[in-house]
Amino acid sequence: MRIARFSIDGTVGFGVVEADRDQGGEPVLDIIKGHPFAAFERSGRRVPLSKVRLLPPVLPSKIVAVARNYREHAAELGNAVPDVPVTFFKPSTSVVGHGDPVAYPRISSDVHHEAELAVVIGRLCRDVPRERARDVILGYTCANDLTARDVQRREGQWARAKGFDHSCPLGPWIETDLDPADLAIMCTVNGEQRQLGRTSEMVRTVEDLIVHVTESMTLLPQDVILTGTPAGVGPLHVGDEVAVTIEGIGTLTNKVVKRD
Amino acid sequence: MRIARFSIDGTVGFGVVEADRDQGGEPVLDIIKGHPFAAFERSGRRVPLSKVRLLPPVLPSKIVAVARNYREHAAELGNAVPDVPVTFFKPSTSVVGHGDPVAYPRISSDVHHEAELAVVIGRLCRDVPRERARDVILGYTCANDLTARDVQRREGQWARAKGFDHSCPLGPWIETDLDPADLAIMCTVNGEQRQLGRTSEMVRTVEDLIVHVTESMTLLPQDVILTGTPAGVGPLHVGDEVAVTIEGIGTLTNKVVKRD
Repeated sequence: MRIARFSIDGTVGFGVVEADRDQGGEPVLDIIKGHPFAAFERSGRRVPLSKVRLLPPVLPSKIVAVARNYREHAAELGNAVPDVPVTFFKPSTSVVGHGDPVAYPRISSDVHHEAELAVVIGRLCRDVPRERARDVILGYTCANDLTARDVQRREGQWARAKGFDHSCPLGPWIETDLDPADLAIMCTVNGEQRQLGRTSEMVRTVEDLIVHVTESMTLLPQDVILTGTPAGVGPLHVGDEVAVTIEGIGTLTNKVVKRD
Repeated sequence: MRIARFSIDGTVGFGVVEADRDQGGEPVLDIIKGHPFAAFERSGRRVPLSKVRLLPPVLPSKIVAVARNYREHAAELGNAVPDVPVTFFKPSTSVVGHGDPVAYPRISSDVHHEAELAVVIGRLCRDVPRERARDVILGYTCANDLTARDVQRREGQWARAKGFDHSCPLGPWIETDLDPADLAIMCTVNGEQRQLGRTSEMVRTVEDLIVHVTESMTLLPQDVILTGTPAGVGPLHVGDEVAVTIEGIGTLTNKVVKRD
């Protein structure tokens, strides 16, 4: 099931994405009664996907991300795969959705794309054992862990380099029926392929990361774990259209604009 | 004005702390109508401070902290004062209040206290110019930036080392009428002094930090900036009572307990 968050005519809601046979296969949203992170049902009221504005599918209280989780990407920046996962936060103010503009931050002149599989947490949890890790996941979406590479190199800790406004596009929706073990993950810039990998190349799996993070901290419903990026990261420029595609989920597209 | 958040008989509210002359100088809370981050007034209804449970005075969406902002503390851990401020996040799930127990995290055997002045942001802001920095501040409280030193050394980025549950005691209340430029700041463990400094020793001032952080990201009402810790950090053990005192604010006390 694909759960999208959207706005139409000034109201905000969630809907289940489906192909509507009555409308020649045009995708529609079956509007959700209730909240996808609690009890909900489909209302049977449908709106065409083309009529809504997609919003970030989740409003995380925190985003916990892992660095250097694909061997080739670690190598391309001259880093070793670390003995223990390297984790950092992105703040709620960094989140934008599919189709939202990304304003190029004033603090940087070297912002890079990083396509990542995002894990959306469905329930409050801590000290999650490996065999229960899948139970705390609501689903998966695409993420772009935008990184001010110059700031990252200069500042040592990455709050500004990876926490600037708009640095975490998420979307287009949450796919709940998906095995994350071996999915193609791709990033294009203006239609040209820049990153291509498979989630099977992750050094630490989704389950490993949930165990590792919840050993230290409680995760809340809507929190997000970013699972690292494959090789091929590179710079973005004002005017670029950057797209993250993950097999079985869809494509998250954002245009880079000048910050006002 | 000192604004406390509290619970009594299962309800939660805010109150202004004052000495009540009718009650022999016992401190009381004048209960607030409205919300301190919006329009509010005092109700004139008072409860003795001794009858309430103090809660964290603020529920931040993010906490942005700065490392190595006191020269002597940087030196005691073998670090230089960095050319640019080193900033990191602590998550909302790390926050506890005055009097709350702090559970010793399972991932560490070397948790340190770090007494810090916490700046409480009062309004949404970004790109704040230095001369407007004071305008975005609602007030100040005490913080303990608890740090799993062993994890911090091992992992490079500090999400787990400084983001574990209970790693950010805040309180006891927000002091709104305070010049942060030169305040005594102290940490005691079981009544023995461990850290002592003055905020005038900060390498970057409160104003510097607001400019620096908001160059990169939007701050929301209730967000918190931690301003670094003076020299004297050291380990805590289960059973310890750790207290952070800042001149003009008060004392934030927490007991370290075994995690259940």
